Amino acid sequence: MTPRTAPAGSGDAGTVRKTVLPGGLRVVTETLPSVRSVSFGIWARVGSRDETPALAGATHYLEHVLFKGTKRRSALEISSVIEAVGGEMNAFTTKEFTCYYARVLDSDLPLAVDVVCDMLTSSVIDPAEVEAERNVILEEIAMTDDDPGDGVHDLFAQTLLGDTPLGRPVLGTEESVGALTRDQIARFYRRHYDPTRLVVTAAGNLDHDTVVEQVRAAFERAGALGRADAAPLGPRGGDRRIRTAGAVDVQERATEQAHLILGMPGVSRHDERRWALAVLSTALGGGMSSRLFQEVRERRGLAYSVYAHTSGYADCGLFGVYAGCRPDRLGEVLEISRESLADIAAHGLPEEEVGRAIGQLAGSTVLGLEDTGALMHRLGKSEVCWGEQLSVSGLLERYRAVTPDAVREVAAEVLSHQPSVSVIGPLKDKHTAKLHRAMAR
Amino acid sequence: MTPRTAPAGSGDAGTVRKTVLPGGLRVVTETLPSVRSVSFGIWARVGSRDETPALAGATHYLEHVLFKGTKRRSALEISSVIEAVGGEMNAFTTKEFTCYYARVLDSDLPLAVDVVCDMLTSSVIDPAEVEAERNVILEEIAMTDDDPGDGVHDLFAQTLLGDTPLGRPVLGTEESVGALTRDQIARFYRRHYDPTRLVVTAAGNLDHDTVVEQVRAAFERAGALGRADAAPLGPRGGDRRIRTAGAVDVQERATEQAHLILGMPGVSRHDERRWALAVLSTALGGGMSSRLFQEVRERRGLAYSVYAHTSGYADCGLFGVYAGCRPDRLGEVLEISRESLADIAAHGLPEEEVGRAIGQLAGSTVLGLEDTGALMHRLGKSEVCWGEQLSVSGLLERYRAVTPDAVREVAAEVLSHQPSVSVIGPLKDKHTAKLHRAMAR
Repeated sequence: MTPRTAPAGSGDAGTVRKTVLPGGLRVVTETLPSVRSVSFGIWARVGSRDETPALAGATHYLEHVLFKGTKRRSALEISSVIEAVGGEMNAFTTKEFTCYYARVLDSDLPLAVDVVCDMLTSSVIDPAEVEAERNVILEEIAMTDDDPGDGVHDLFAQTLLGDTPLGRPVLGTEESVGALTRDQIARFYRRHYDPTRLVVTAAGNLDHDTVVEQVRAAFERAGALGRADAAPLGPRGGDRRIRTAGAVDVQERATEQAHLILGMPGVSRHDERRWALAVLSTALGGGMSSRLFQEVRERRGLAYSVYAHTSGYADCGLFGVYAGCRPDRLGEVLEISRESLADIAAHGLPEEEVGRAIGQLAGSTVLGLEDTGALMHRLGKSEVCWGEQLSVSGLLERYRAVTPDAVREVAAEVLSHQPSVSVIGPLKDKHTAKLHRAMAR
Repeated sequence: MTPRTAPAGSGDAGTVRKTVLPGGLRVVTETLPSVRSVSFGIWARVGSRDETPALAGATHYLEHVLFKGTKRRSALEISSVIEAVGGEMNAFTTKEFTCYYARVLDSDLPLAVDVVCDMLTSSVIDPAEVEAERNVILEEIAMTDDDPGDGVHDLFAQTLLGDTPLGRPVLGTEESVGALTRDQIARFYRRHYDPTRLVVTAAGNLDHDTVVEQVRAAFERAGALGRADAAPLGPRGGDRRIRTAGAVDVQERATEQAHLILGMPGVSRHDERRWALAVLSTALGGGMSSRLFQEVRERRGLAYSVYAHTSGYADCGLFGVYAGCRPDRLGEVLEISRESLADIAAHGLPEEEVGRAIGQLAGSTVLGLEDTGALMHRLGKSEVCWGEQLSVSGLLERYRAVTPDAVREVAAEVLSHQPSVSVIGPLKDKHTAKLHRAMAR
């Protein structure tokens, strides 16, 4: 069987091509001859939502372990070959996928392909290395606990989604990570790093066919190409209804600031309303000219950091506004945030604010085209999450097609949900009582 | 008087040109025709080290206030014109300079020039806006207090440099920011934002002469070009000896992790040994293949984040290693860090590690050439700190000229200083006592 290769649409930055190797391994590249770098990454369609409670944190633990040695290379050899040529290598784990990547000069691409493919296909998952890494991950969990502005996002997911795979934190907990065994992690690796579940991506000054050959050779060498007739695993789907409303979730910590997210269910990443919700989110809290920034920070000086955000998963989504402020200002911040949400739910947004938000989204999409790392990220996320590539001109079209009416519609649907609130901070009983009263109104 | 324009050396990414306008305003650009973006910035040679104790935090406060309105624009107008075209705008303050910048599509450069020049030349410093912004800065200070991994760098500067302008934090303190008046800030602005103290920079798809004309027009319109015969202010110099040795500085906070910096005086940014010290710092703790990462994280699993860093000021410098870990591991981390420093002080580094560190520095320099923001940053910092542009090939030459002997020499000089230690974390008396005993050995 020969590889199937097809143009996957113009990325407008460069030329996007996709090849499916026998065994179901996808290789998607974007060629950009005007740069000297290449970003290369391998994406696995596995995230923390694929974990049972007993395996909580396994996806992220495994991500760490893949850096710890292969049949051919020690941990030091993995990092030093890329760093010695000035490249950088890293990885990240989300609730729905995991990505390993390197950014190097174009002439060093064969090296990056070899190392990253080796890590993904030939990890030894050495028991001693698994043990040493457990402590590193416990330190990472402690570090996250010390960062309440970040941690409140984990809390908000838990507030809305509860103790479910999607509601639990990506890192797992001290208990779950403490209990994971080397064999559980090795089984998880064998199950989820099959070539049908992987997507190889590269963006920069490269030749598609050469990259495909290098990847094929690396996987072949590792005996990891799989059954010739296997087909790639498609994107996740589903439709999940989040019923949480009016919840109040407070975690006390001895910090200076309280960190708040006020929010509700959003829309999934397959939902056509996501374009209008992105415009709404940008206008509400996407920059210095946004409503929340202007009202909460510029006019009232209540917070340094305030923004809106959306999370789109395969089957559901979240929408919320974040602010960090000292505890005696929490009531006022909460009130302004609730009023803003209620106002937009009732009236939508005027044309001027919608236009500005569209300009902001479109402009930053175009500015992102110069960064091979961002391009590689777009290729991988598109393939894993949608199973197709949307060109930049397609993206811009979607943003530009959002009308004030569409924003009004999605606002009326999403923002009319009764909001919930998650807070981490130095909340005394009186603050917490006030919070409950404010949310009950 | 006509502007003096001269090629300032090839940046190897693009063509660097510099013009000095009558009035002493410098304009430095780098033309890179292969991109679609431009990063535009104005640098002021003023930082927190220019503050008396009564003015502590004034530089940073002023940076905030310049976003709050000019004779022609409100705060909302300043941010919305750039954001509506998808651009991004921000600023930062350091101990020695302040920078305001925007990144936009090339066609929007005239807009960015107009807005940023307007902010710098025509701020109204409105009393009501100054008041509202005071609370925002107090929130920023509270946020920094909640980030001990960041705050420990402020503490380390204080440990080594004491209550001096360079030893105090850029943000000021709750007390000093609470006491600053509108008139103090306005005076600080008039004194330090004179055109002889400013450097205008731009990198990306631009034409040097056009940018110069746009900048000149914007400054002329604001009546801000100054006396025609004024000359630009040169870089700072001096030679300051730091005498601190063996200090132990502990700040107790109720966090999960303790954050440690172990270090000593480094070298100034005019010191020729800085190239060898950069190589040393990279080999010791500049990436995943560095000694500290390998020993502290990979082999012993003692920390998630561990690295070495250098700070070079005009007249002195600092060198240190950072690690974040739970308090019962602090002793072991400290011991390994001290041993590593002592070992390198005594023996230098083998050729292989020196070569890898040079490759890492050189490669990341070249990879940085694709980012117009990074290029603009290099232009501004070079002009403000050294008064000249060093081309990328010049930079690479300096790194590549570093020999194991040069590393051994700078290691023997810098690392043989008795180290001091700064720690923020949940340290009980027994931990602190252990720390003192360990440092006394």
